[in-house]
Amino acid sequence: MPNPTAAMLVIGDEILSGRTRDSNLHFLAGVLTQRGIRLVEARVVADDHDAIVAAVNALRSGVDHVFTSGGIGPTHDDITADAVAAAFGVAIGKRADAMALLSAHYARQGLEFNEARQRMARIPDGAVLIDNPVSVAPGFSIGNVHVMAGVPRIFEAMVASVMPGLTGGDPLLSQSLRVERGEGEIAGAFGALAAEYPDLSMGSYPFQSNGLHGTNLVIRGTDAARLDEAMGRLTALFG
Amino acid sequence: MPNPTAAMLVIGDEILSGRTRDSNLHFLAGVLTQRGIRLVEARVVADDHDAIVAAVNALRSGVDHVFTSGGIGPTHDDITADAVAAAFGVAIGKRADAMALLSAHYARQGLEFNEARQRMARIPDGAVLIDNPVSVAPGFSIGNVHVMAGVPRIFEAMVASVMPGLTGGDPLLSQSLRVERGEGEIAGAFGALAAEYPDLSMGSYPFQSNGLHGTNLVIRGTDAARLDEAMGRLTALFG
Repeated sequence: MPNPTAAMLVIGDEILSGRTRDSNLHFLAGVLTQRGIRLVEARVVADDHDAIVAAVNALRSGVDHVFTSGGIGPTHDDITADAVAAAFGVAIGKRADAMALLSAHYARQGLEFNEARQRMARIPDGAVLIDNPVSVAPGFSIGNVHVMAGVPRIFEAMVASVMPGLTGGDPLLSQSLRVERGEGEIAGAFGALAAEYPDLSMGSYPFQSNGLHGTNLVIRGTDAARLDEAMGRLTALFG
Repeated sequence: MPNPTAAMLVIGDEILSGRTRDSNLHFLAGVLTQRGIRLVEARVVADDHDAIVAAVNALRSGVDHVFTSGGIGPTHDDITADAVAAAFGVAIGKRADAMALLSAHYARQGLEFNEARQRMARIPDGAVLIDNPVSVAPGFSIGNVHVMAGVPRIFEAMVASVMPGLTGGDPLLSQSLRVERGEGEIAGAFGALAAEYPDLSMGSYPFQSNGLHGTNLVIRGTDAARLDEAMGRLTALFG
């Protein structure tokens, strides 16, 4: 069976302005690879309604799962929930279960459950809440789109909440060989080997450290025996 | 005059598999913001011909400049140049000036200028070379698309080669205020202030450090006087 596919949508002006360096994509990529879900595309868009709607609709039609990060807080620039509702053509409003969660949370803290905080209970019709063990305000899944917070600690906790419910695939395995030769020197034989293993993906990544330069050769696939065999051939060539 | 716009396309399986954490987007975002070029979208796609062609064509029609990183080395998985040529519907072949640059480079190093290394002289018809002071193999610009290497040190050098030739805009300025209150507490007044300054962009970014939690409030725009005025109002509210 082919591996399920996924796309990620990072939402936030702060990434595109260079203020913040995103870490959620790298985190999610690692988790999905372990679960055998192939991340095939990622996009970053600004806090812009039309841009979010267009990206959600473009991505959700092409993959099994879309994961979004960012824009679900209490401030005026948090517009992701409304944009996702618009993308699905459904209504959005404060939902009783989300209101109850948040109301209890702020009561425990002795903080006012004001209008801004109530904004975080706005959930598109038909969505399922995603548990947020860090700061309570929930994410949500609607159709194949999982909407999560941008703050890395919360994003990571929400990913942990969502993953058990998803169907994974054979784990995407990788093995790598570090060779102290430039890419241009190994490219011919490496490319010929890759052509013999069309079921595997082979990539080369040059490095430089301490004046030494070389190449990391990586083989990826789902069949451990095939990976071992190809890695044996690779080691015989360059090891 | 409105600021010019840009998009970035990061190309590489290693980013989507979680093997490598991209740093080129964050670097480029900072450079463009300083130059007054608004980065409106970024995408990451795999080393896949059709995915690269589709992304290049989708992005180049919507912005003033597209910057790509990755996939222009000597190995079989370096397919960006061919994909960009296909996106523009132009032919691609080894170009004399790129061949001369690379030939001289490998002669100086006493290395064979083999078939794999000659691959890096493949340039789409009509493109202009981008200087690579780090490792010689050039990038190229075709139309409004600037094609650069993925290795961060080389990407950054190529960005430095390209930027002087681009028309910038008024620098995108930002000022920020750190307040030791949660987003939910400041959201109401902050949103009201943002509504009074539609020409500025205001964002809030929660932080937690040493058990303290609070919010960084950021105001962005191109008019320094307006920024000062809005920041004065913000400081009066929360400073």
